[in-house]
Amino acid sequence: MSDERTFSRRSFLGAAAGAAVARPLSAQVPNLTLPELPAKKLGWAIVGLGNLAVNQILPALPKCQKAQLAALVSGRPAKAKQLAQFYGLDAKNIYGYENFDAIASNPAIDVVYIVLPNSMHAEYTIRALKAGKHVLCEKPMANTPEDCERMIAAAKAASRKLMIGYRLRYEPYNLALLKFAQEPELGPTRVILADAGFNIGDPGQWRLKKAMAGGGSLMDIGIYALQAARSLAAEEPSEVYAMMHSTPGDVRFAEVEENVTFQLRFASGLLANCTSSYGVGANRFRVLKPRGWCELEPALSYTGLRMRASRGGVLEERQHRVVDQFGTEIDNFSDNLMAGRDPLTPGEEGLRDLRIMTAIYESARSGKPVKLG
Amino acid sequence: MSDERTFSRRSFLGAAAGAAVARPLSAQVPNLTLPELPAKKLGWAIVGLGNLAVNQILPALPKCQKAQLAALVSGRPAKAKQLAQFYGLDAKNIYGYENFDAIASNPAIDVVYIVLPNSMHAEYTIRALKAGKHVLCEKPMANTPEDCERMIAAAKAASRKLMIGYRLRYEPYNLALLKFAQEPELGPTRVILADAGFNIGDPGQWRLKKAMAGGGSLMDIGIYALQAARSLAAEEPSEVYAMMHSTPGDVRFAEVEENVTFQLRFASGLLANCTSSYGVGANRFRVLKPRGWCELEPALSYTGLRMRASRGGVLEERQHRVVDQFGTEIDNFSDNLMAGRDPLTPGEEGLRDLRIMTAIYESARSGKPVKLG
Repeated sequence: MSDERTFSRRSFLGAAAGAAVARPLSAQVPNLTLPELPAKKLGWAIVGLGNLAVNQILPALPKCQKAQLAALVSGRPAKAKQLAQFYGLDAKNIYGYENFDAIASNPAIDVVYIVLPNSMHAEYTIRALKAGKHVLCEKPMANTPEDCERMIAAAKAASRKLMIGYRLRYEPYNLALLKFAQEPELGPTRVILADAGFNIGDPGQWRLKKAMAGGGSLMDIGIYALQAARSLAAEEPSEVYAMMHSTPGDVRFAEVEENVTFQLRFASGLLANCTSSYGVGANRFRVLKPRGWCELEPALSYTGLRMRASRGGVLEERQHRVVDQFGTEIDNFSDNLMAGRDPLTPGEEGLRDLRIMTAIYESARSGKPVKLG
Repeated sequence: MSDERTFSRRSFLGAAAGAAVARPLSAQVPNLTLPELPAKKLGWAIVGLGNLAVNQILPALPKCQKAQLAALVSGRPAKAKQLAQFYGLDAKNIYGYENFDAIASNPAIDVVYIVLPNSMHAEYTIRALKAGKHVLCEKPMANTPEDCERMIAAAKAASRKLMIGYRLRYEPYNLALLKFAQEPELGPTRVILADAGFNIGDPGQWRLKKAMAGGGSLMDIGIYALQAARSLAAEEPSEVYAMMHSTPGDVRFAEVEENVTFQLRFASGLLANCTSSYGVGANRFRVLKPRGWCELEPALSYTGLRMRASRGGVLEERQHRVVDQFGTEIDNFSDNLMAGRDPLTPGEEGLRDLRIMTAIYESARSGKPVKLG
């Protein structure tokens, strides 16, 4: 596809130049500066063909500069076959969970993207690493810190890279908010407000099963507020306190929590006030400084992000580059892998969030603040 | 002034009717429906001539329908004299703190508005009540719940009404937000976010002296977030947890706190996440429901309030009537007094906030959640 594009561009330029000077086309081509050819693309296997894979990740891959679809892994062969056909993937690159480890002998696969329910992250990440592949694993990294530690150890043992899918850490609006948080002009960041929630639908989905999801809104959506607070603070929280509530009798919250409000205290004195919800919509990060503030709302949607900032009393709206968030993340990891660099959001980052979320649950249960190591 | 306006309106109507039928003006007047004359205005004494009184309250009084300036009380006679002259007030209605109790024998004074530093609220409220006057006292009601109780007892003993100056409880945007919170259509309110703060200036001001202010940002500005959370929830919190931080070395915060984040848990399960700050600007109340949310930002400014609401995914901006917040509050109390009704925000309401703020300070100090009675 990229060769074809290069060829077309050369033909067009040649023809245009030919019209001006009327020399034979063949004679002009050597004089043109050839565009740089794109680098090799890494081959990606997508594991788990749920909504996120089908509606976001698979459509993003053909737009990637450094990644391409190399395999599909699913428990539903018919679904996988249909998607393979749509994306021009040879059916021999379809795997099931029973023959998943055979990816080891498929040299077209460089990276495995784990898009399974949370409870399966650890197992399939570790199996992929053992098969010699790099891994991008969706958030939350796993259901427990212990699983995260096993995943990190597996990556080390296999000398392969492990990245956690914190897409907002690669997204231009969120990067601009981070830049605002770190700018010295308006003073240091004193307070961070981060709210993430939605009114969850279908009561039968795996996100509402404790065993598969590991928890409720906090594990799935509140984690964005936690990640935002930690990355915007650019330091680790020393203490957390949380309150939790689920509407009694709401079948969706029979196993997992609905709402969590939590506060984080950072060593510098910065305070973060966060909300997580499966009951109400919330989609906002705000950084507060002595002489201004900056806010994203929506902050964590796939598209349509909006930034407002107040600088010394002047209110402004800022627009940033709009990207395919999954494509950007996939290209970023591919690029780092090809350059031999570690990812920005490695397994250790996922582990830190799991440890803090475990502390948030502990605080909500015990009614006491929990100190973080 | 109102008589003058009534007269002008009658003349105008008479002249217009006269032009049409060409009868002598005097013959037509009896046929007109006369406008209802305004009711008696109550006489207000303003105690304390600081920024709030000079820039907000005194300019509001001439616009009031049911209140008029009756006296000024100040420790600075020259300032009081100048203001009296400007507002057409006879100099005999100027009092100092030493002869304050003489207001008892001034029948022109019906209500006393206490606009003094917090530590003086209790003393002057009680003295005014003992002088037989009704009292509107600025927030926070006092520095301690015990003082609040003394003030309430004094009102009872004197058979006079005591109102606390929670101006937002009378303001149309805030009333519309309250209406949203109570509407059943979008589901019950599950989460309330309330943030109030500003970057405080002059380090020498009384608001930064513990003895005069009783505390820092929470007592002065965070109280708006607390009031909003409680009134929007339409129930009382059962538990509070707070974190607090003041920038070390910042002379403004040598005696009182800079930032407080606090969570409130309500019996219904509703959670509120609140911020109070003397270090950063924050000016926002948001009500979150399963199928929508509504927000004021700014929420607590004197002017320029803005409301946005999301109803079932449709984002809308709503404009409400703009009022002089102090004039509205003053007229509301005057109207209630003339009708013999209790104020919407009586001393008991101020006491509740003081008790919760005391619990917030206790939680921040002890690092433990505090149950509320």
